[in-house]
Amino acid sequence: MTTKQYVNNLAENSKKAARSLRTADISIRNKVLKKVATDLIANSNAIIQANQKDLALAKTQGLSEAMLDRLALTESRIAGIAKAVQEIASFADPLGQILSSTVRDDGLQIEKVSVPIGSILFIYESRPNVTIDGAALCLKSGNAVILRGGKESAFSSAALATIFRNALNVEGLDENAVQLVENSDREVINELLKCEGLIDLVIPRGGEGLIRTVVENSRIPVIKHYKGVCHIYVDASANVDEALAITLNAKTQRPGVCNAMETLLLDEALGKNQILRFFDSMKLAGVTLYGCEKTCQIRPVINSIAESSYDTEYLDLKLSVKIVSGVKEAMDHIEKYGSGHTEAIIAESETAQQAFVSGVDSSSVMVNASTRFADGGEYGLGAEVGISTDKLHARGPMGVESLTSYKWVLNGNGHIRG
Amino acid sequence: MTTKQYVNNLAENSKKAARSLRTADISIRNKVLKKVATDLIANSNAIIQANQKDLALAKTQGLSEAMLDRLALTESRIAGIAKAVQEIASFADPLGQILSSTVRDDGLQIEKVSVPIGSILFIYESRPNVTIDGAALCLKSGNAVILRGGKESAFSSAALATIFRNALNVEGLDENAVQLVENSDREVINELLKCEGLIDLVIPRGGEGLIRTVVENSRIPVIKHYKGVCHIYVDASANVDEALAITLNAKTQRPGVCNAMETLLLDEALGKNQILRFFDSMKLAGVTLYGCEKTCQIRPVINSIAESSYDTEYLDLKLSVKIVSGVKEAMDHIEKYGSGHTEAIIAESETAQQAFVSGVDSSSVMVNASTRFADGGEYGLGAEVGISTDKLHARGPMGVESLTSYKWVLNGNGHIRG
Repeated sequence: MTTKQYVNNLAENSKKAARSLRTADISIRNKVLKKVATDLIANSNAIIQANQKDLALAKTQGLSEAMLDRLALTESRIAGIAKAVQEIASFADPLGQILSSTVRDDGLQIEKVSVPIGSILFIYESRPNVTIDGAALCLKSGNAVILRGGKESAFSSAALATIFRNALNVEGLDENAVQLVENSDREVINELLKCEGLIDLVIPRGGEGLIRTVVENSRIPVIKHYKGVCHIYVDASANVDEALAITLNAKTQRPGVCNAMETLLLDEALGKNQILRFFDSMKLAGVTLYGCEKTCQIRPVINSIAESSYDTEYLDLKLSVKIVSGVKEAMDHIEKYGSGHTEAIIAESETAQQAFVSGVDSSSVMVNASTRFADGGEYGLGAEVGISTDKLHARGPMGVESLTSYKWVLNGNGHIRG
Repeated sequence: MTTKQYVNNLAENSKKAARSLRTADISIRNKVLKKVATDLIANSNAIIQANQKDLALAKTQGLSEAMLDRLALTESRIAGIAKAVQEIASFADPLGQILSSTVRDDGLQIEKVSVPIGSILFIYESRPNVTIDGAALCLKSGNAVILRGGKESAFSSAALATIFRNALNVEGLDENAVQLVENSDREVINELLKCEGLIDLVIPRGGEGLIRTVVENSRIPVIKHYKGVCHIYVDASANVDEALAITLNAKTQRPGVCNAMETLLLDEALGKNQILRFFDSMKLAGVTLYGCEKTCQIRPVINSIAESSYDTEYLDLKLSVKIVSGVKEAMDHIEKYGSGHTEAIIAESETAQQAFVSGVDSSSVMVNASTRFADGGEYGLGAEVGISTDKLHARGPMGVESLTSYKWVLNGNGHIRG
């Protein structure tokens, strides 16, 4: 079978499964999810064995400790995945929701009703748990999914997908509602991206390079999950104690994630003594600072930063710092270097707060709160597909509702247009 | 100036204008719209003169009567355009709407607020009225727009865009909120489609070939406006008199538009005599039929249709006909040949209605009503950008709300993540 045939089969199967899912009742979709949760626990040993193969291979390839950690499955991690699936099963049905409803004077009823998107291509990192999360979120929202995980997790993902497909089969749904791409060749992705008409949406997560390639080659709509270069601006009106706690939390509570702060913008009017407190706080937490000229004047031991480096996503205990002349310069800086993910202002001044909230074009804008809250779970969305850095369809944390579209349903009584 | 520089200027200007529009109050946006409406009337003569130049050129190029008619502007048509702008000014502000709001137990407030998308590239046919409609809808929703109309309307569109830009200027907004592409070279579109990061959305209307080219070349999200191959299925349970009236309306009230019926699917169980009534009704209205084998058996003078022609959008007094074995076969046919635009079922059976509504994946699904209702105005959306055949972001008639995105706004009180 050629790559093209292989891909075409995947896409055709997915479209067919999507059609049958359109009318699959919520009780059956939830039944499958509950069976998946049970079967994950029951098959823990087999899953761990498959995962051991991945880990052994990954070690020979010199993967970093962090990546090995993301890849590893244990009994308790599998229990965690099962719990997440059970939680998704407990969500309300995102389909069939009446989003708007009107009855015209002539009696014609017009409803906007939530429906599945159809077939989704989900591209993600070597994190086996995402295989199950992605499949579960797509099934809950009535979508067929083609899963393409990182190649380092091939054995684990295959074991997990098999469990999911078996559950679909047992409950009488088309097992092709969940398909795993087993050929890690990049050419497979390129061919899949040409399957407009069969696949309705591509969601790529992971490395920026991969996402850019997907965008450049796709004829199918893409919801992108780019990086997070998150800023916190501390206004002169800030409660400085609060600001110190928030900036520390945003930088250090979990530096390796996309909603961690990467750049601290300090209002010059805070004055040297208050500004130094931020530097001390970061130093104490082991954070290396990279500062602008003014920063280095205030504390000469701080490394100076090249202007072009302000777009850096460190994902580490490192922080860019800039001293600005107020909220306007802070917003100009964010406009230029931000990634549109999450920014925060720490200020008591309502004028400054309002200027920041309306002027900053990011998926999440925080007032007096840590950027770390930008998360589907924290927002009460339950499990999330990821954090969209796009402005179309879904922005910021994407819950199960983000995986739905809608249709207009009109009920008439012989209505014709005059 | 090279094409690349020209395009880059357009895109940079648009991004800059979009930034200033983010915080432009609704009262100013409406003021501009009202001034545009007044100025259109005041400058009717100049607009008509420009339009005459387009028409003269178009006639030498042998444009069809229908296209010349779409291109022509008269005093009353200009008044109509001005009225549409005034209506858009009267709409509620689509921005700053609180789409959802929660306060967590810890007091952190999370709101989802509607915001502009940013900068939009709008590609459309040689219809000068769309220049003003597009600009007005984008300004109302706080978006900057780059307008690229068909080249046959170049003089008219330039005159209209000048009026709009002048109104922006007079009211103190950035005139680059509305820019017209004055170079009709296709290369300009190709370069614009590479401006990801500067332009946020592309909306192409018009010929299918052009839209496909846009999709293939764009790195920017596209909301497509493809064709409408709309079906009506008449179930054996239908009130036949109602069905006759609806099908006649859907085919003949305005055959040249995308929500006109192109294929009639008749339930075999209606019986020969009832089926013949549909053929008679269409014949009387001057509609030429193209039927399946069974159709031609019932009435041999009807032209037989090649299976592959069932995806035809006639936009004319022509109709494909197929006799099917019931709602299931009707849905199979629609799945294979439909364009996902609008389909209708005429049936008294609730089982058949429900199967059709949940099983058919189209932007509008009608029960006992004409497909001709699929229209933003009929749905109460006011003016429309077009009818999206996409499932992402906006589906079906796109009103001004479809031109908005949202952001998450969090209000805390020193909140940090534990």
